[in-house]
Amino acid sequence: MRRCDDVKNLKEADVGLSSHPHILTSSHPPAFILLAPQMGENIGAVARAMSNFGLSDLRIVAPRDGWPNPAAEAMAAHGEHLIKNALVVDTLGEALTDITTLYATTPRQDVLGKPVFSPGEVMQTNITLQGERAGVAILFGPERAGLSNEDIVLCDGIISIPVSAENPSLNIAQAAVVIAYEWFINSRKSGNPEISGVSHHLKMDPRFRGDVSTKAELEGLFDHAKILLDRVNYFREPGKTKLMWQHMRSIWVKSELTSQEVRTLRGMVRAILRLL
Amino acid sequence: MRRCDDVKNLKEADVGLSSHPHILTSSHPPAFILLAPQMGENIGAVARAMSNFGLSDLRIVAPRDGWPNPAAEAMAAHGEHLIKNALVVDTLGEALTDITTLYATTPRQDVLGKPVFSPGEVMQTNITLQGERAGVAILFGPERAGLSNEDIVLCDGIISIPVSAENPSLNIAQAAVVIAYEWFINSRKSGNPEISGVSHHLKMDPRFRGDVSTKAELEGLFDHAKILLDRVNYFREPGKTKLMWQHMRSIWVKSELTSQEVRTLRGMVRAILRLL
Repeated sequence: MRRCDDVKNLKEADVGLSSHPHILTSSHPPAFILLAPQMGENIGAVARAMSNFGLSDLRIVAPRDGWPNPAAEAMAAHGEHLIKNALVVDTLGEALTDITTLYATTPRQDVLGKPVFSPGEVMQTNITLQGERAGVAILFGPERAGLSNEDIVLCDGIISIPVSAENPSLNIAQAAVVIAYEWFINSRKSGNPEISGVSHHLKMDPRFRGDVSTKAELEGLFDHAKILLDRVNYFREPGKTKLMWQHMRSIWVKSELTSQEVRTLRGMVRAILRLL
Repeated sequence: MRRCDDVKNLKEADVGLSSHPHILTSSHPPAFILLAPQMGENIGAVARAMSNFGLSDLRIVAPRDGWPNPAAEAMAAHGEHLIKNALVVDTLGEALTDITTLYATTPRQDVLGKPVFSPGEVMQTNITLQGERAGVAILFGPERAGLSNEDIVLCDGIISIPVSAENPSLNIAQAAVVIAYEWFINSRKSGNPEISGVSHHLKMDPRFRGDVSTKAELEGLFDHAKILLDRVNYFREPGKTKLMWQHMRSIWVKSELTSQEVRTLRGMVRAILRLL
């Protein structure tokens, strides 16, 4: 697995210091994260689409056929630099160290009570007159199976691309085209007074206050809390553990905890564990 | 060249009777016309994208590798019925017998003074609260060369998909995804008061009066007029003939002639020719 130089820096950032530039300043194009992609051709086609619409932050988690993948490079056309600079990692967590807002692409709608947005709504939510929110990523599942509940649990929302009921199955690269295109046209009109209403609304959004926790910080809290809950035998029925734990994490994701709040909660967990 | 049953009917309609349902009633999804497409895979990918977004009227003019094309069927996935039902013809004119409003997809902007629209603008122009304009088609050029001035001359406007300046080269199927997606999201909100302003504006548009000429009728006029102009030696400088003729046709396209006006003009041409 090849990794770009950024990984080490990202990991260092994850250890303790959290200096995430969540503030709305100029342009912060979203990252596209491909989880366990199967075909190199599809990875390449996603890179090409991203490049066509001005995106460059491609992250690939556990690609089926290893890395590098010549089929991906061949298909990327003029987007091959995205393939060369892609962050390639083994686990989703490693791709999320600087991500504060994560959207799942899935045709499924009613998953863990997550809010559902159209591609245009997602972009209008994250791009305002003042600029663009940093730390946003779009998560794409493996071609055949798509995203599981386990993957979606960390997401703040679901992107649902409107499609015909007669043929709703979108290829991963086609989905990437639509989302990248919506980002591009919305980022171009970010100086447009039309969306100032949205902008006003977003000032109220806690994720815009500038200190929201990263997904990696949240995962650290989850791991820590799981140790505690296992110790006190909270999950008594093994058959229900997974579902209970998914719902619990979903609640924490929805709470939009700040980095400070995550540290406070972990301190609490640590204090309880010490007494057990 | 295989042709579907519709061709014969279309040709009969072209002979004289013009009963084109240009009136705005419910849904009239646009046709996609592929001019001299090269790769079967691309034809299939366009069919798949159309099908994903509820479009079905695919027309193919002079495909490089003949027809049927197994690569097109394989790539179409659940859109294979579009491939099977496609209208496949030898000349662009044959694909236009019921088309009144034609848009060229090209990255070129300043062609023959044609107005340039974004994909969203095109769809908002043709879909209103009252329904959708019939006889609209989107023209895609061959992969390598794209559309020539000769192809664009018949078009009422250019669709320009906003792309990054660093990698502006969109694959034909990616362009089809964006345009089909824009049609789908706009057709779904056709009952939405947001676009009523557009709707009001369009009532003034002569193309909505219900009697605009088809592209085939216009071509009939052009051919007729060309005979007359050649007879009177209008094009004295052979080197300039093509350009002069392109501009003249462009003017007639812009005039948005009704079927009746085309017949009147052809009657005039016929009368002059009789005296020569």
